[in-house]
Amino acid sequence: MEQFKHIGVIARPGSAEVVDTLKRLKRYLLSRDLHVIIEEPVAELMPGHGLQVCSRKMMGEICDLVIVVGGDGSLLGAARALSRSNVPVLGVNRGSLGFLTDIQPDRLEEQVGDVLDGKYIVESRFLLEATVKRSGEAIGHADALNEVVLHPGKTTRMIEFELFIDGQFVYSQRSDGLIISTPTGSTAYALSGGGPIMHPRLDAVVLVPMFPHTLSSRPLVIDGNSEIKIVIGSKNATYPQLSCDGQVHLTAAPGDTLSVHKKPFKLRLIHPLNHNYYEVCRTKLGWGNRLDS
Amino acid sequence: MEQFKHIGVIARPGSAEVVDTLKRLKRYLLSRDLHVIIEEPVAELMPGHGLQVCSRKMMGEICDLVIVVGGDGSLLGAARALSRSNVPVLGVNRGSLGFLTDIQPDRLEEQVGDVLDGKYIVESRFLLEATVKRSGEAIGHADALNEVVLHPGKTTRMIEFELFIDGQFVYSQRSDGLIISTPTGSTAYALSGGGPIMHPRLDAVVLVPMFPHTLSSRPLVIDGNSEIKIVIGSKNATYPQLSCDGQVHLTAAPGDTLSVHKKPFKLRLIHPLNHNYYEVCRTKLGWGNRLDS
Amino acid sequence: MEQFKHIGVIARPGSAEVVDTLKRLKRYLLSRDLHVIIEEPVAELMPGHGLQVCSRKMMGEICDLVIVVGGDGSLLGAARALSRSNVPVLGVNRGSLGFLTDIQPDRLEEQVGDVLDGKYIVESRFLLEATVKRSGEAIGHADALNEVVLHPGKTTRMIEFELFIDGQFVYSQRSDGLIISTPTGSTAYALSGGGPIMHPRLDAVVLVPMFPHTLSSRPLVIDGNSEIKIVIGSKNATYPQLSCDGQVHLTAAPGDTLSVHKKPFKLRLIHPLNHNYYEVCRTKLGWGNRLDS
Amino acid sequence: MEQFKHIGVIARPGSAEVVDTLKRLKRYLLSRDLHVIIEEPVAELMPGHGLQVCSRKMMGEICDLVIVVGGDGSLLGAARALSRSNVPVLGVNRGSLGFLTDIQPDRLEEQVGDVLDGKYIVESRFLLEATVKRSGEAIGHADALNEVVLHPGKTTRMIEFELFIDGQFVYSQRSDGLIISTPTGSTAYALSGGGPIMHPRLDAVVLVPMFPHTLSSRPLVIDGNSEIKIVIGSKNATYPQLSCDGQVHLTAAPGDTLSVHKKPFKLRLIHPLNHNYYEVCRTKLGWGNRLDS
Repeated sequence: MEQFKHIGVIARPGSAEVVDTLKRLKRYLLSRDLHVIIEEPVAELMPGHGLQVCSRKMMGEICDLVIVVGGDGSLLGAARALSRSNVPVLGVNRGSLGFLTDIQPDRLEEQVGDVLDGKYIVESRFLLEATVKRSGEAIGHADALNEVVLHPGKTTRMIEFELFIDGQFVYSQRSDGLIISTPTGSTAYALSGGGPIMHPRLDAVVLVPMFPHTLSSRPLVIDGNSEIKIVIGSKNATYPQLSCDGQVHLTAAPGDTLSVHKKPFKLRLIHPLNHNYYEVCRTKLGWGNRLDS
Repeated sequence: MEQFKHIGVIARPGSAEVVDTLKRLKRYLLSRDLHVIIEEPVAELMPGHGLQVCSRKMMGEICDLVIVVGGDGSLLGAARALSRSNVPVLGVNRGSLGFLTDIQPDRLEEQVGDVLDGKYIVESRFLLEATVKRSGEAIGHADALNEVVLHPGKTTRMIEFELFIDGQFVYSQRSDGLIISTPTGSTAYALSGGGPIMHPRLDAVVLVPMFPHTLSSRPLVIDGNSEIKIVIGSKNATYPQLSCDGQVHLTAAPGDTLSVHKKPFKLRLIHPLNHNYYEVCRTKLGWGNRLDS
Repeated sequence: MEQFKHIGVIARPGSAEVVDTLKRLKRYLLSRDLHVIIEEPVAELMPGHGLQVCSRKMMGEICDLVIVVGGDGSLLGAARALSRSNVPVLGVNRGSLGFLTDIQPDRLEEQVGDVLDGKYIVESRFLLEATVKRSGEAIGHADALNEVVLHPGKTTRMIEFELFIDGQFVYSQRSDGLIISTPTGSTAYALSGGGPIMHPRLDAVVLVPMFPHTLSSRPLVIDGNSEIKIVIGSKNATYPQLSCDGQVHLTAAPGDTLSVHKKPFKLRLIHPLNHNYYEVCRTKLGWGNRLDS
Repeated sequence: MEQFKHIGVIARPGSAEVVDTLKRLKRYLLSRDLHVIIEEPVAELMPGHGLQVCSRKMMGEICDLVIVVGGDGSLLGAARALSRSNVPVLGVNRGSLGFLTDIQPDRLEEQVGDVLDGKYIVESRFLLEATVKRSGEAIGHADALNEVVLHPGKTTRMIEFELFIDGQFVYSQRSDGLIISTPTGSTAYALSGGGPIMHPRLDAVVLVPMFPHTLSSRPLVIDGNSEIKIVIGSKNATYPQLSCDGQVHLTAAPGDTLSVHKKPFKLRLIHPLNHNYYEVCRTKLGWGNRLDS
């Protein structure tokens, strides 16, 4: 087990509850004589904090552990920024969902304490890297922990594209777009589009067509190491967009090519020892509990 | 590449077209001075055949290659019977579907000839093994290349069960049953139940609930090495059944446990060199072809 | 508003809670000097009851109101039996679901009292009548308030049939069967098969294919007055079955014809004044409540 | 049967095939001594046409019949423009789909001739009227023959809204939007969102949630005379948009109300005598044909 001494703190701004949790977290970490480093937006939330401040990217270089206070969205953002470093990430849940953020704010000292005492498990979650190419040259790229979405930018328009996997032509499609999701993202946007739930340990990617114009289009699960290529039909009337985790956006033109593949770096996500993926599913998705025997 | 000298032949009885293809196949194999071995039902289809006859299981021991004439169903049956041997299997399509049987009967000599000349690819397809246990003791087991289905035996009844994966409780469910499908089976029964298509190379299993009584039940894709355990609720009024590839059937009682896991043996499926999984999908499922550029 | 004086009581046997509710209901009805008539199975549940006993069918003739104690299944059974009479039906919920049974057992006197005082609304729910014909002659028929299901009898088998609506050929299908559901049944079996929810006031029927072998099959909503005819393919290997509300069963043979149409008689279902269909949906299906403003 | 003497002609510009069909149509109509009136864009397609020209709206006043040359989209546009007049509309198919446009261009004289000879059937198709209200006052409205779509304007954003039907609160929802479709639209966008197919004769509307954030959201079919009201959550970060038939667009603000109800005017759609809705479904959706007996 690693000894965590330099702890980075990232947070979602805009809520009094987040500030409360930040103060409590700072107090607890300092009480354990740890070196606490906060990012700029956190510094603004805590005037007179007296802590070291650095950029999110730099945090990956100088911290042993990064704690994110917020919802799954905040953790997604931190994961993308930190994905080149090897620093493990722990989430304190201050959002509405919580597939990624395990720590409950009201049990913060106990649960964060356990992690600092070495009582935790580490899970690897892979990210996707998306690149838009024009005439063979990359004109933009972005990372995603949940999903890459190719879409027309405006709702109720559609796009026409060709899909290739590992160099093999798969199909052409007219639809509102395509979701390319990791197992991590399979309980998010891909699920509301009819995709399957994929266990986080699975080395796979699912492609979920959005409002496809043929009834035979179905979610397609492929190996996580596949090379996905999408050729945007040159006759499209619109400039399609690429969204990563619903946040980062790239614009493509008709005729452009989109490549998506697994990043070599992985997110190291920290969970309490009693973490159980299916229990989270039962709670979040309303699955049935044990039968009365 | 292997040299195939002892060729076993298996066929689906009951059709004149199958007999035609068998005769043509025999003529061609003998013209290449190969040792042809047929199973009992094939012998009955070809009176005066003058060939060696053996059981399907024995075929696995003495053949280098087994050719199946029929539909995907025939190949499923051969695969289950031959799964302990390491013998590769080639399918000649005389059925309505053809995800597994590649050879076209009217190009038999050319396409089988290519395979015999060493122009082929071999694909590994894993099978599932299902065991019913009562008070801890196995009372029946069966194999499946496509899917294991737990169902109430009679339609419009339902069963109540608990699902465990790798020892972790997943959910309890009331439904018409559960489909546990390999990637090979993902284009068969699981697909009509709303499951995703899984590339055959994927080491994964999908669990598809059948007419579940909660709206939150979704297909769940898990690692192919998972240990799946289903505890049949002791209050069930019916004796649930287990079907493997829609053929082999076991009956379970309330309180029994069903275990499903990957078999150590794999089917070695032979394809022509130009085989392309996605092309088969496009043909069988009606996916879109290349765009006009 | 009608004055209810002769009250029939029907119940689902087998539960102590039902007996409790029956006793409480008897006490309350007698306290209001009403004439209480019970059916045979209820008489057995209440030894020494001292009440008039009659058959379920007869109850339709001599009662002004029938109260059903049980779940939706009990009310379905009562509705089918009473459908020729015009007697209104009220449900006391002692089951797990409750789309049809509104009265809560612990508020029985208050809520039943309101109904007896004329504070109620009556809703008409239509039933379907299914007839199996062989060589043009009816060989069996049955009624359904929820749905008629044509299925192979055994799971994982399939049937092949042709569908005609109002004399027009619609499609042929190979599937595990077909659900023909009323709006009342649209929140039951049809929903777990992917059918839409239909408001009870809608004069429509939905046809939901079960595990269809083509990806283009979708639920089809047609006018409630349509004449539905299904011709069972003469080449089917199995004898398909017909289930009405999951209870009544008819067996058909290959080549038989199944006709389904709306019955001329309707169930008159009584609700408390504050009954709200969408509130029941929100509770039972977990739909979202009002937003915080 | 009506005698058609004043024939309006509308067309989708931009294709040589449409111009060919227009010339052939003009020649045929003039050969029958009919009064032909064209709209402005058609006039531009046919230089030196020598015909009366008028606006699309005026056409509804002075024509007995309007012929639309184009795809379903062209007919949708004509229907919205002509919906206040009572003029019947006939479609000549020059597009990729053709649920609404029956006449085949290569059989134009024969099939249009039959209609002019009185050999036709008229079908009523209702339209929806959508109104956006701010502080109780209408700030925009639009019509739709297929569907009204409420959406965030940009893909992968979501909106939060409350749905009311006939004054009753139904649910609140966070999603990518809501499709409100007529039976006519049920084979278009609503179908790719998972909605059921509704027979055109049905007096019903279906509400299909788009990528809903709860798994319990399902298509909801309600009476065609229902009053649908959507209150856009005042906390939405985006300005949602309203699209009618994918063409007309209105922008709403957080806190606005959207009302949708059936228009009093209906489209009178003309079909050849042998028109069969289910045959169109079989062709367009790939449903199965008659079984071999």
